[in-house]
Amino acid sequence: MSETAIRFSGSGGQGLITAGIIFSEAAVLAGYHVSQTQNYGPEARGGASRTDVIFSDDEISFPKPASLGLLIALTQESVDKYYRDMKDDGIMIVDGTLVGSLPCSDAIVIPFTRLAREKIGNALTANIISLGAMVAFLDEFKTEYVEKSIAKRFSKSFVDTNIKAFQLGYKEGKEALKQRKQSMNICPAEELEG
Amino acid sequence: MSETAIRFSGSGGQGLITAGIIFSEAAVLAGYHVSQTQNYGPEARGGASRTDVIFSDDEISFPKPASLGLLIALTQESVDKYYRDMKDDGIMIVDGTLVGSLPCSDAIVIPFTRLAREKIGNALTANIISLGAMVAFLDEFKTEYVEKSIAKRFSKSFVDTNIKAFQLGYKEGKEALKQRKQSMNICPAEELEG
Repeated sequence: MSETAIRFSGSGGQGLITAGIIFSEAAVLAGYHVSQTQNYGPEARGGASRTDVIFSDDEISFPKPASLGLLIALTQESVDKYYRDMKDDGIMIVDGTLVGSLPCSDAIVIPFTRLAREKIGNALTANIISLGAMVAFLDEFKTEYVEKSIAKRFSKSFVDTNIKAFQLGYKEGKEALKQRKQSMNICPAEELEG
Repeated sequence: MSETAIRFSGSGGQGLITAGIIFSEAAVLAGYHVSQTQNYGPEARGGASRTDVIFSDDEISFPKPASLGLLIALTQESVDKYYRDMKDDGIMIVDGTLVGSLPCSDAIVIPFTRLAREKIGNALTANIISLGAMVAFLDEFKTEYVEKSIAKRFSKSFVDTNIKAFQLGYKEGKEALKQRKQSMNICPAEELEG
């Protein structure tokens, strides 16, 4: 892969920029060049929020408007607004707790907010769970870099909770990826375990 | 003003992205459209860090490579690397504690890191002091929006310290601006107090 664009989108207060910064710093640890952009507008007071991260083997001279390989959408509004920004083979991963209606049949649906509440005991970790699911869809991306970046970003008492949230999201993401491959019949069955 | 580009630059760990986010959210409160971009590279491990914020009365369809109206540079490396990115009438504000040599004679020099240590009692607030100085150079920008944004960003126990850091930076910035106007003789004396 030479250049990959991803977007975290949802509403203000969901910690999307934080998720983007954590991922950006992990990508730097992994040896990539990274550019992260967030747009805010007067409408953002109402809640819309997003951040785009582009990572590349080569220097990014200029952050182009992204054709997204991966789109994380944590609200219905962000699904409706951004799914058209995906590449033809881009993958949308949505929060099944908050999103009711999908414009494309092959979106990945994971209940991030419910998992955050029920499995982590902290609804504010939905962003980090979604980060984990996202990383599960990046074949060559090592989770250890993300965990290092999480450890750097949060104060000590929150690191363990957020690592746990990340790992839960990663596991859910890998499970969803496996089901997707089976239903799309992309790979021979023996590769699915790899 | 229709579109203004500013850059916070220095080394990783100086909190420049945080300063950029605080300013971006303040600019949204002030009614602007805002785009913020940070680039990270493998070289960033060594320490270089920067974030660009563009704010505009109109929607920003696309974050252009910035021709900077204001450049905050907290290290010698960032001075040397970025001063060429300024507009002809752009203003560079540097940390006099950490920067020894200047490429242009009219840079604004304020000892952010020393002020953070000696006046605020916390070296980590140099970023917020520099944010205050920067806002002092934006004529029409109301400080109350920045203070609101600071209050939102930090946990309760750190808000007062950071507001104090911001106000100190603003005061230092206004003082530097006044001296600059006097030495450049831009304004008649009676306007300087305004």
